[in-house]
Amino acid sequence: MKIKCEGIELSDAVSKVIKALPLKRMNPVLDCVKLTAKGDELTLLATDLELWIEKKIKAEVLIEGEIIVPGKIFAEYCKKIEEEKIELDGTNKNKLKLKYLDSDVSFACLDFEDYPELKSVSQEKSIKIDKLAFKDLINKIIFNVATDESRPPLKGCCLNIKENILEGVASDGYRLALAQIPMENSVEKEQIVVPSKSLLEMSRLIDDTEETITLTFEKHYLMLELSGTKIVTRLINDEFLAYEKIIPEEFTTEVVVDKKQFENAIERVSLISRNEKKSYVKMEIKEDVILLKAESNTGEVNEKVQISLKGKDMMIAFNSKYITDAMRAISDQYITLNFTTPSAPGIIKGQEKNWLYLILPLRVMYNK
Amino acid sequence: MKIKCEGIELSDAVSKVIKALPLKRMNPVLDCVKLTAKGDELTLLATDLELWIEKKIKAEVLIEGEIIVPGKIFAEYCKKIEEEKIELDGTNKNKLKLKYLDSDVSFACLDFEDYPELKSVSQEKSIKIDKLAFKDLINKIIFNVATDESRPPLKGCCLNIKENILEGVASDGYRLALAQIPMENSVEKEQIVVPSKSLLEMSRLIDDTEETITLTFEKHYLMLELSGTKIVTRLINDEFLAYEKIIPEEFTTEVVVDKKQFENAIERVSLISRNEKKSYVKMEIKEDVILLKAESNTGEVNEKVQISLKGKDMMIAFNSKYITDAMRAISDQYITLNFTTPSAPGIIKGQEKNWLYLILPLRVMYNK
Repeated sequence: MKIKCEGIELSDAVSKVIKALPLKRMNPVLDCVKLTAKGDELTLLATDLELWIEKKIKAEVLIEGEIIVPGKIFAEYCKKIEEEKIELDGTNKNKLKLKYLDSDVSFACLDFEDYPELKSVSQEKSIKIDKLAFKDLINKIIFNVATDESRPPLKGCCLNIKENILEGVASDGYRLALAQIPMENSVEKEQIVVPSKSLLEMSRLIDDTEETITLTFEKHYLMLELSGTKIVTRLINDEFLAYEKIIPEEFTTEVVVDKKQFENAIERVSLISRNEKKSYVKMEIKEDVILLKAESNTGEVNEKVQISLKGKDMMIAFNSKYITDAMRAISDQYITLNFTTPSAPGIIKGQEKNWLYLILPLRVMYNK
Repeated sequence: MKIKCEGIELSDAVSKVIKALPLKRMNPVLDCVKLTAKGDELTLLATDLELWIEKKIKAEVLIEGEIIVPGKIFAEYCKKIEEEKIELDGTNKNKLKLKYLDSDVSFACLDFEDYPELKSVSQEKSIKIDKLAFKDLINKIIFNVATDESRPPLKGCCLNIKENILEGVASDGYRLALAQIPMENSVEKEQIVVPSKSLLEMSRLIDDTEETITLTFEKHYLMLELSGTKIVTRLINDEFLAYEKIIPEEFTTEVVVDKKQFENAIERVSLISRNEKKSYVKMEIKEDVILLKAESNTGEVNEKVQISLKGKDMMIAFNSKYITDAMRAISDQYITLNFTTPSAPGIIKGQEKNWLYLILPLRVMYNK
């Protein structure tokens, strides 16, 4: 292959596809990006056999063909010649030569014929959604994913098609996040579990080039399409948590609070309790205030935040990290906290009802 | 002690003095910041017994006195209540209570009388210099400091008063940086070696509040004064390198090159050679170009940069990291490279002759 292209487009495309390279060294072939020159396009592809990322850019193709080149060093080098017009010459399979200005560089390449193809996915079950809404859905749930290996499906996020709604859910067994966005078309019900790493890369690759993205669901794969980019991920083939059954719907205490004030107070309280086994915050809800408390070897703190309360007074305690994480993911001005008993899950909701967080309480002593 | 002050001023002062806290735990007392309320000021002091940082802020002093409080957590907490007016109550020596809004926090404090005082320094030998010039001098030399322990004075920077010039020098034995700035007054000759950590903290604490700073030299200490802030550091009491003897003054090859073009080319070359034992760059200087070359398992690179040459052609090689580091520290549009033989030190100079870098060459094969 031999082509000419713009350095900035090449650099951008390589930096995107290398996100699919294996983190640990598996096989020298998989450390490479595959370049294919055909028609008036250069196609770049990388994969760790879980995630495939393919991106096409415009190129002046002088000789069609393909070559694989070590991905990381190639990406770094391309970043340093972004401003130039570049000629890529891979006619010798063992060497990819880049010419720019009066200078040139050659990368040692593997002579390898069978680089894995982009996983092909049947387009039967495709939905169209707003890209920023999808990015927001991922950001609202993904930090709840389990980090241990004990329950494999909890290492992924559940995507659930319900009539015209796409619902995303993640949980580590102690907390759960749920978010919903509308779809632009309607397909049959479907539920899949996507590895969180793949979903995170999808979120990162969503840029400003177009409004709508396409998600295609297959039994073992999910594909996301953006202009010029395809991302395919293998799915987790285990049943997800039956989460609909564990989200309570009736409560005895409902608190409405300014989100920013509540977040700031919780962050200060957690500075004091963070050296304890669990960084906890005790909440005492009464009349028009919520008192947030913690004490430790470091000292003790009493934070007072104004609220509007419906229902019964309440004393309950939570891991403050879980609340802080949830606060950071949302931008609503006011939030609603719902409780029933000190041992039942607490629920945080926003104003628009398109997301919720469930958090299991901690058992602590309320000796004041 | 009991005072009221502005959260923003307290937070700023604490964040500055805690830079003198020990990095490793030495003694619980030294993990603390000392607060002293007197007159209409609050004085904050921290030290690891090598470096002392003291800062004064305005305060409404209700009860004079002093207290020591664990520095890091106090600084973090203050950062979270920057926007408030704060009352600090340390009348109980074992507890420092902060009140803000309707909330409060108490920090467990040590009851300790003998916190080390700020090292007092005789003002006999003081110089006044422009603060940004001093910051720039530090930035131009400090990255050349030795990181190993084999020659203790090379772990510091040499400050050398020469008539109306302050000269700074640092070297790790393979490269050396020298920079000069004018002084606003004149004192006797003096040469000291300042630990690089202290000099770096001094550079970081220089902000935008005033134009001139005062440096006071004593046999074993150096003091820097900014408005409201004093920084005292212990010195390294070993003789520095006799650097004036090793800087050559005559050369057979002189190259003038665009700094940015040269820097970019060297950075690309070092991407290819960085997996070698030493990340080298070979330079071939001839007529109006400098050819920069490297090869490794990764590939090979040939960069061509236009120059203006006086004197003889030259082939010489350097550790590319040393050149890259120097390039990053300077902003001159053109630089001059001076050489004599492939085994003699190369010298890089700027347009204004107030700094220079000396770099020892590498021995490599010139097989082409």
